[in-house]
Amino acid sequence: MKKMGQLYEGKAKKVYATDEKGVYIVSYKDDATALNGLKKGSITGKGAINNRISNHLMAMLEEQNIPTHLVQELNDRETAVKAVTIVPLEVIVRNIAAGSLAKRLGLEEGLKLASTVLEFSYKRDDLGDPLVNEYHIKALALASEDDLRQIKEYSLQINTILGDYLLPLGIELVDFKLEFGKTDDGTIILADEISPDTCRFWDVKTHEKLDKDRFRRDLGGVEDAYKEVLFRLMGGL
Amino acid sequence: MKKMGQLYEGKAKKVYATDEKGVYIVSYKDDATALNGLKKGSITGKGAINNRISNHLMAMLEEQNIPTHLVQELNDRETAVKAVTIVPLEVIVRNIAAGSLAKRLGLEEGLKLASTVLEFSYKRDDLGDPLVNEYHIKALALASEDDLRQIKEYSLQINTILGDYLLPLGIELVDFKLEFGKTDDGTIILADEISPDTCRFWDVKTHEKLDKDRFRRDLGGVEDAYKEVLFRLMGGL
Repeated sequence: MKKMGQLYEGKAKKVYATDEKGVYIVSYKDDATALNGLKKGSITGKGAINNRISNHLMAMLEEQNIPTHLVQELNDRETAVKAVTIVPLEVIVRNIAAGSLAKRLGLEEGLKLASTVLEFSYKRDDLGDPLVNEYHIKALALASEDDLRQIKEYSLQINTILGDYLLPLGIELVDFKLEFGKTDDGTIILADEISPDTCRFWDVKTHEKLDKDRFRRDLGGVEDAYKEVLFRLMGGL
Repeated sequence: MKKMGQLYEGKAKKVYATDEKGVYIVSYKDDATALNGLKKGSITGKGAINNRISNHLMAMLEEQNIPTHLVQELNDRETAVKAVTIVPLEVIVRNIAAGSLAKRLGLEEGLKLASTVLEFSYKRDDLGDPLVNEYHIKALALASEDDLRQIKEYSLQINTILGDYLLPLGIELVDFKLEFGKTDDGTIILADEISPDTCRFWDVKTHEKLDKDRFRRDLGGVEDAYKEVLFRLMGGL
């Protein structure tokens, strides 16, 4: 497979065309942003770590019958993925109150939610990715009713599978963000990444943060936290 | 019926206990606030006008089988209403993009929405009444699933009835806010008010604003706009 022209550059990844039909290459960057891009920085080795973590978790999800964009890890930072059109929604899945939810609704960070919360935000950097509900999604045709139903179903399944997988590794799945894409034949599959950039991971015992909040909140030890997650996923090797 | 102690004072109304079981008295004020209370003022005669408008519309809705809190208009500013515990949600019903929706989602004010949008905000002045979705409502137990289903059903019915009623009077129902309450026996009924304070009303032909946006946006002619709505509802008498 040959890497062709760059199609897109996001905050943490670049996407390239390839000479293979229906396949893109994702390249993970070390760049880190927070607060809708207001805070910028770099986390040494993040690109390579997130590439490994995300591929590991997507492969695990595939085994549990969640279709993902993963095709094949190519090298440290690059992975071949199925070409999709991204559904312009971020799906946020929350088990424990933290971050913007805690602030917005006046909840103490760490409060276990009585039921899983799904939130949708409209992927529009210029608007700060505003929260939308299912009525907005319908009125603005951001996703069809069938696609939204599928996305919700996958999101809740992924929450259960991922939470059950991480707990024995001493990681509590606080919340995370998913993006879905549509292949040429109209199939909805999981896209984007699953990594400490897109999830809140807390150590089960110490509640230490093992995710991007260390960068957002200037807690230090950012690289170590990302490495620790990868280390635990690799079976502590 | 004897008016007893004050139970509550809101931005635009006071609520009093009475000596009659299950009945409160609502007293409408001329005070006007906007921007979550940051902007304060007074609109001469607003209390009396909104009292008449709201009672007129609630009586019309009752005839169309929507249960409301209306018992009896007592005088210019005061109305006897059924005592309820207010469900801590504001329901916003939108037919046309305007106000916070237009700003938040980058839509042009006046855009006809492809389908009716319902929004819910959590009634918490200290948090600025944040938007919530049905997952938040469930996780925080803001309303039971049955109550929420009933509230959504009534809200959409009210939208149809009210829109159809206002159109021949030359008023376009752009959006509006509803609050529901629960009586002692657990019945959900429409509470609060329906007035130019809580609705966006546009003149069908000129698109002139006949509502609180004249106050919010310093457009002038605030009292005249409220009076015009009442005048049209009274059949132009």
